Amino acid sequence: MSERLERLLDVYAKMVTDYIFKMVRGRPEILYKASLHLIKAGGKRLRPFITLATARMLSGTSGEARALPLAAAVELFHNFTLIHDDIIDKDEFRRGVPTTHVAYGLEWALLAGDLLFAESFRVLEDGLERGLGFEDLGRAMLILSRAAKRVSEGQAFDMEFEKRWDVDINDYLEMIYLKTGALIEASAMLGGIAALEDDEVVSLLGEYGRLVGIAFQIKDDILGIYGDPAKTGKPVYSDLREGKKTILIIYALNKLDNDKREKIKNVVGRKASEEEYREVAELIRESGALKYAEDMAYSMSRRALRILDSLDVVDEESREALRELAVFVVERDH
Amino acid sequence: MSERLERLLDVYAKMVTDYIFKMVRGRPEILYKASLHLIKAGGKRLRPFITLATARMLSGTSGEARALPLAAAVELFHNFTLIHDDIIDKDEFRRGVPTTHVAYGLEWALLAGDLLFAESFRVLEDGLERGLGFEDLGRAMLILSRAAKRVSEGQAFDMEFEKRWDVDINDYLEMIYLKTGALIEASAMLGGIAALEDDEVVSLLGEYGRLVGIAFQIKDDILGIYGDPAKTGKPVYSDLREGKKTILIIYALNKLDNDKREKIKNVVGRKASEEEYREVAELIRESGALKYAEDMAYSMSRRALRILDSLDVVDEESREALRELAVFVVERDH
Repeated sequence: MSERLERLLDVYAKMVTDYIFKMVRGRPEILYKASLHLIKAGGKRLRPFITLATARMLSGTSGEARALPLAAAVELFHNFTLIHDDIIDKDEFRRGVPTTHVAYGLEWALLAGDLLFAESFRVLEDGLERGLGFEDLGRAMLILSRAAKRVSEGQAFDMEFEKRWDVDINDYLEMIYLKTGALIEASAMLGGIAALEDDEVVSLLGEYGRLVGIAFQIKDDILGIYGDPAKTGKPVYSDLREGKKTILIIYALNKLDNDKREKIKNVVGRKASEEEYREVAELIRESGALKYAEDMAYSMSRRALRILDSLDVVDEESREALRELAVFVVERDH
Repeated sequence: MSERLERLLDVYAKMVTDYIFKMVRGRPEILYKASLHLIKAGGKRLRPFITLATARMLSGTSGEARALPLAAAVELFHNFTLIHDDIIDKDEFRRGVPTTHVAYGLEWALLAGDLLFAESFRVLEDGLERGLGFEDLGRAMLILSRAAKRVSEGQAFDMEFEKRWDVDINDYLEMIYLKTGALIEASAMLGGIAALEDDEVVSLLGEYGRLVGIAFQIKDDILGIYGDPAKTGKPVYSDLREGKKTILIIYALNKLDNDKREKIKNVVGRKASEEEYREVAELIRESGALKYAEDMAYSMSRRALRILDSLDVVDEESREALRELAVFVVERDH
């Protein structure tokens, strides 16, 4: 990651985290502690970064100031989905800490997620104190609520795919758009709202976010098998154990011969030994799936760059940071 | 229930149910089936009734037409909370059918609730097709998101109270305002938004809704112990088993002597025989708690009527229906 991007990610992460801790308060204490548990544990804050940097790119520091509640909204929403997804996927660790349901129990985790969902909309209200009008809030709310519907659908497809072997690449791309792309798309669009842009620019920003989001998820699926758990903070081979139909699995099943395909089907979606998962990971690599997935992620990243380059901007440094982000999501090792 | 109220409840229930089935669509199919499972099973639709009748009372049929997406929003939101509450409370039946997590499993129920939450905001968008502007949507969204935060807090207090014996009547009243009152308050306020009223009228409507909501919940707690399960559709004595700190329990613990108090504490919050729960129910009645709770509910209902009477309205029949509703919530046996 470039120094510029690293610095700006840090600055915006601190800004949005402080803001969230200021805004998300109430009683009973345990509800708020459970809700903020994962947020406290860290995270890259890519989504609010996109909102803030997009707003600043298009309208300077005034846009950035208006964008803060919107940036917090997407991060709150994202953390709501993480808490509930961890329940569904029975994941026990994230960001190096026990997941919320492990730390607080299922009931509190369920409710903590619901609260963050509520807060993601409620926090938009603070936009009124920062130069946004009710109309901007209305637009922001529609963007966020459409994304919320899509994220639910994406998670549902992801679950449904776990039981199926006939998932193709298009199914996969649609699913990861819904599950991951839609919220990153919304993050960029909300930056446009904060910059008081018209629907056309907001829609272009959405396209940038969508491409970055899909590329990000492809890379996530790659790291889920070939990443270093010490760096990703995620349990090794959990995607294989859960039977996730990622681009890698789908491609490998298409390309490999029957014997190898059966070998994969006998391991994926089952509790197996680490050795067996490792063998499957090697089979997948052998099929060319890793290269295929990386090429696709890079191609999306390049398309995202072209969209950025087409915009009229006031802050070139923010554009450069957003360019670097589109590259980072596919080059990262964590 | 009066014939007028019954007829209008039916008309509005059908209107909002049809609308929900038209608006809440998508894939994968199982997600939408699980999400609509409880809505399909019926329900009184009191909250959308309040939104629609309030809008009509203040601005006639045009207000009623604008109110439909807002009415659907509160019903969708309410059903989201029911699905998640049933998971938390481990309830197995509601509205005469298995709860969503029993019918579809925990994971799908969790996600189905999340989808309905998303849809409750997304459906507001249709207000734009019905004469509402972005500013109205912004106001509606803030009302709904504040209510959502409160409902989470209320559910959290309800859970926290289960483990505590030092809950007093004020704690209880605050909790039921958050858990039940806040959404009914929002339902009435949204009717005011649809009627294009100013903040002062919207706030008065909120007060009506808040009082009706609290009275409704007090009556619900009464029916939870003294109601006929065949009529309420809820398992008998589940509140006692779960250790809910209702107004009845709190009052009885304050009034009864040590022996009887211990008897109650030994049964409430534990798995006990129906006979033991029945004895506790009798002890509570003996303490005067039933009368105390009923008096409080009636007093709130009367205050709600006075607020209605103070409004300038264009449709007297809707006002009369809303008056009858405020009486019905405390006189109902289901």
